Parts: sequence; structure tokens; C-alpha cells
Amino acid sequence: MLPSLGYGATSATSPLQAIRFERRDPGPRDVQIDILYCGVCHSDLHTVRNEWHNTVYPVVPGHEIIGRVTAVGSEVTRFKQGDMVGVGCMVDSCQHCPSCAEGLEQYCENGFVGTYNGEEMHSGGMTYGGYATNIVVTEKFVLRVPEGLDPAAAAPLLCAGITTWSPLRRWKVGPGQKVGVVGLGGLGHMGIKLARALGAHVVLFTTTPDKRQDALRLGAHDVVVSKNADEMAAHENSFDFILNTVAAPHSLDAFLVLLKRDGTMTLVGAPAEPHPSPQVFNLIMKRRHLAGSLIGGIAETQEMLDFCAQHGIVSDIEMIPVQSINEAYERMLRSDVKYRFVIDIASLRGAPAQ
Amino acid sequence: MLPSLGYGATSATSPLQAIRFERRDPGPRDVQIDILYCGVCHSDLHTVRNEWHNTVYPVVPGHEIIGRVTAVGSEVTRFKQGDMVGVGCMVDSCQHCPSCAEGLEQYCENGFVGTYNGEEMHSGGMTYGGYATNIVVTEKFVLRVPEGLDPAAAAPLLCAGITTWSPLRRWKVGPGQKVGVVGLGGLGHMGIKLARALGAHVVLFTTTPDKRQDALRLGAHDVVVSKNADEMAAHENSFDFILNTVAAPHSLDAFLVLLKRDGTMTLVGAPAEPHPSPQVFNLIMKRRHLAGSLIGGIAETQEMLDFCAQHGIVSDIEMIPVQSINEAYERMLRSDVKYRFVIDIASLRGAPAQ
Ligand SMILES: [Zn+2]
Ligand SMILES: [Zn+2]
Ligand SMILES: [Zn+2]
Ligand SMILES: [Zn+2]
Repeated sequence: MLPSLGYGATSATSPLQAIRFERRDPGPRDVQIDILYCGVCHSDLHTVRNEWHNTVYPVVPGHEIIGRVTAVGSEVTRFKQGDMVGVGCMVDSCQHCPSCAEGLEQYCENGFVGTYNGEEMHSGGMTYGGYATNIVVTEKFVLRVPEGLDPAAAAPLLCAGITTWSPLRRWKVGPGQKVGVVGLGGLGHMGIKLARALGAHVVLFTTTPDKRQDALRLGAHDVVVSKNADEMAAHENSFDFILNTVAAPHSLDAFLVLLKRDGTMTLVGAPAEPHPSPQVFNLIMKRRHLAGSLIGGIAETQEMLDFCAQHGIVSDIEMIPVQSINEAYERMLRSDVKYRFVIDIASLRGAPAQ
Repeated sequence: MLPSLGYGATSATSPLQAIRFERRDPGPRDVQIDILYCGVCHSDLHTVRNEWHNTVYPVVPGHEIIGRVTAVGSEVTRFKQGDMVGVGCMVDSCQHCPSCAEGLEQYCENGFVGTYNGEEMHSGGMTYGGYATNIVVTEKFVLRVPEGLDPAAAAPLLCAGITTWSPLRRWKVGPGQKVGVVGLGGLGHMGIKLARALGAHVVLFTTTPDKRQDALRLGAHDVVVSKNADEMAAHENSFDFILNTVAAPHSLDAFLVLLKRDGTMTLVGAPAEPHPSPQVFNLIMKRRHLAGSLIGGIAETQEMLDFCAQHGIVSDIEMIPVQSINEAYERMLRSDVKYRFVIDIASLRGAPAQ
């Protein structure tokens, strides 16, 4: 077994702290990675606090992982020692169901293996995530980080990036289209950047007028304060696609009526309490669609990383030492981050904590 | 003006009765039709009783119209005296917006003109529907009734038929697909027949176990009692498409979870009170879609009529004289009809009321 040092929680109420644990011994198809950076996602916090009622403790979160390959198994062909690589929300799947066959491992009919708090397919134990010094991942689930992408700022691409990229691609967002992004957080800020780079006319919806300048800087062509009924009414029946990143319960109707005929609003956040029920009338009268989307497949994650390198896109981040993670969680709950915390894993190895 | 004798209501609380009114003088593009049969739709009842709060009285309902051409205007090219024709839910639209240009007049950006209780574009008055001896309709909105279709049983194709046909086509239902139809009423029984004829494997969902035999007779391959959790669970993640015809509020989640990845459930009924809010989780985890659909365009209505003639499909009807309409409404509210009332308009002309 491979010793690892992580930062995790031993119960729903304990703060994160240093935890020693072991990774599986790397097999012939495995890539062993020294982690350099790990982004901080809302899912980390939900899992640490057992808000989805499925956490097995101790838990070491983190699924926006950037690191360097330190060793590869004998059957690994795509990576070698020294490569800069990424690992996202999944580290395994069945590889034989229809969804896996189509490269949509996130919808694996047998359930993908989450990067943390998942059931390890090799050892039978649980998976541990990227708030840690190293990780062992089967080659298929390792991403190439193209040259030219800042490794720390690329970390959030592995969850926030792909979660917005996958629906933008699935619903064929591109030039000539008017695309809305609801909410300016970790997901929303990536949604703006990616939709803009894909050539769409991008409108950011926010409840916070203060975010206008920042949204424009990130690439939005227009910003609408969603609490302003007149501003909203001016956009009725005009959107091809709306990417809704807000997990807090809110009126879906306010956005559905902004869609053109045959338009789709896709939700990427699941609220703890349901949204108010959308009016069927708003779906029927323009043949509109309400849909959901879950992260993205491995092939499209690589496509997204390559696209980001080509277009100079990374996440806006605030780097923190791992010792600040508990405080960072509190700030994240207040949306006090622009727009993603990234842990400098050097701080976990005993390097000076900046 | 052209005198007409109809059957309609003078207030939300008065029973339907004989009403004399006038149609516009037929213009050069108009088709004048003697009505033979008119189907009875739930919308008729909602409008008569002002349940949508937009009824202008007197109202003469009816938008499942079959009749014979008695005269055509000088510019009419597609119809001649004696032709058997149909008129559905629309009698006009702007004809220049993008939706009209695509043959999707039901989504006309300027609002289509309903066959009754709509604003007449020529006279400026209101439109009167098919519970009447005659009607004048612009050529574009008149449908050819193919030979071989029983005219009385074809009447409900003009609303119930096209309302189910349009989504089945839009979502490309065909061989190799597993398709659900929720609810066995006027819409549901057409949904079964059309989906079956399109080559799909058809499953009818009902809350009423007694309907099993009838659903199988109509063409369903399988019938699931939606209140039976075990029966429902056996179909999880297996449907390509579900056509939901039930307007009464019910759990959408019960059906959403039956969809495969990327599957769609389309609602064609709008409840007075909202459905319980669907769980976003069920949309996200399989990239499922919830959508709506409104009747259908004129071109696809013709396509549907031709398809029905080719496949020997009509509605199951119970013919009534117009004098029984008030009683028929009460029976319709109790779902006591298999599966559509059709008024024999001869009864309105003073012929013996059967
Ligand atoms: Zn995440
Ligand atoms: Zn799989
Ligand atoms: Zn109708
Ligand atoms: Zn139009």
C-alpha cells in the first residue's frame, strides 16, 4: 500500500485536519500522481458535513486535482513520469455499459466511482480525494493538462469547468446563439468564459447588481438583475439556451419564459429543498425544455482542457494553504470567493504555508 | 354575412343552447364548409365555463370539425365544392413570423387565432367553433380528409390526434423505442394508437387497473398501474420517451425516473393547480428532459391525417345529438366516455335526434 497524507474529516461535525491513510498499490494500468493543487468544490463541503447522508468517515475530499506523474504501471501507454495531469470527479466506472461505451462515464448504468467517498473497485475500501499528497488512478480516468495552462488555475476545470462545458456542448451552444448563465459563482464564472469562447452572445443573470462589472470582465455581453421584472421582461422568448448554476430554490418560471420556442434550460445544481414547481403552461406554449446535466465524460473533459488551453481559459482562483480550509468553507458558504479556492498541496507537505 | 346556427353558452353558468349568429362573408381565399361532425374536447368545457378566465360570451365551442366544402373563394386552389375537409384548433395566424414560416403555426409569435373564442382577423369580432351548421376558414387552415377515414371518427384527430402526433414526431418516436403514454382518455387513447403505428413498444400508465384490457385492445404492448410501486420500479431507466396526457396534478418524478439517459417526458396537459415540483436530481442524474407540447402545425396535421388513413386509425367515439351536449360534459368530467364524444351536426339542422 502507498502511504498518503491527506486533509479530511472524521465526523460530520469535526473540522478538517491532517489524516494519514493509504492508497492501493499501483497496478499495471495505474498512474501514480503527486498532487500539486486541488480546487475546493461545494460538493466537498456537502460530503464532509454529511449533508447528502451518505458519507463514510474518515473522508478526504477534493475532486479538482492537478498533479505530476511519479510512476506508471506496465500497461500504461498515454502517460509517463513527469507529465502534468488532472483528475476530476470520477476515478472509475464499469466500462462496459452503454453510457461508458459512449464516453459518458458520468452516467454509468452501474454507477461511477467518485474520486472521494466512493467504493474503491480494486481494494474494496473507500476512495480518498485530492486534499492529499498523492493519488493512484487508472489511466482511463487521468486527463492530460496541456502546456500553457496554469496548473493551479486549471484545477477547477476538472469539476466546475466540465460541469458547465458538457451541457454547453450537448446543447450545441455556438455563434449566433443567445445563451444565459444563471448565477455567478464557481460554476457560473466558468459558464460565462466557456460560452463566450464558444462564440455565443452571453447574458449573466444575478440577484446581485454589484456583480455586473465582474461578469462583463469575465466575458458576459450583458448582465440582467433577475429580481428586476422590467429587465427580465425585456428578454422574454429570446434565449436559445440557459445554463442554470444556482442550487438554491428559486423560480424556474422566471427563466423558462425567457427561452425561445424549443429552447432548453439546463440545471446543474440540485437544491436541498425543491424549486417552486414550474408552470406547465410555460413548457407547453413554446415547446420549451427543462433538463439536467451531471459533470461530463472523460473524453469531453479532455476536449474541454484542450479547448481551454487553446483559448487561454482558466478559473479565477484564490490560492490557500490546506490549513485554511475550514475558514475557506465558511467563506464559500457566504459566496466570499472569486471564484474558486485552490489548495496549494505544498502546504500539506510541510512547505511554508505562504 | 353568412347566417349560422350553433350551440353555445351565453354565460359561464348557463347550459349550452341553440344560438343564431353570423360568419364573415367568404373572401377570395376562404373555404365555406357545411359541418357534419364535431368532436367534444375538454377545452370546450373549460371555455364554456370560463375556467381560463378569458371567455367572451356568447361562445360556440368545437375545434374537431369535419365537414364538406360548399363554396370556395376565387383564389382557393386546393379545395373544391364537395371535398371532405377538417378544421382543428386554429383558423388563422400571422403567417410571417419564424414559427409560421416553419409550419408551426401553433407557436405563432403573434398568437394564432383559435377556432372559437379567438379574435377574428377579418371581421374584428370573435371566432365561433364547430358546434354549428357551417364555418368559413381561410384555405391555409383547412385540412384534406383522406378517403377511407370514417368522417365522424376522424373528427377527434383534429385536436386529440394532432396533440399526441406532434410530440411523437418531434421526439422521433419509432421502431426500437420504448414509449410510455400516461393516462387513458381522449388524448391517451390516440397516443397509444399513433405510437403503436409508428413502430414503438408502447406502455400505457393508468391509475385504473380496469383499463388494462382496453389499453391492450387499443394497441398498448403493456399496461402499468402507476399506483403500484413494484410495477413502476420494474420499468426504471427504460423509456426513451413518455407522453404525459394527464392534466390533473400528479407526481412527475414517478415517471421521470422511468426515463433512460437523455430521455424526455413531454406534457400535453396543463393542470389548473401545479404538479408537485419535480426533483432536480432526477433530471441531473440521467440528463433527462421535461418538456411541453401544444397541438401541432397545419402541415403536420395533414401528415397525421394521411398517416391515419394509411394505417386505418381513427378515434374511438360515442356519437351524440347536439341536444345531449350538457349531459355529455358531465359524463366527460367523470371520464365516462370511450374515448371521445362526437356531435352529429345533423341533429342541429333539425334532423331526428337519433
Ligand atoms: Zn465538484
Ligand atoms: Zn458503465
Ligand atoms: Zn381540443
Ligand atoms: Zn406567426
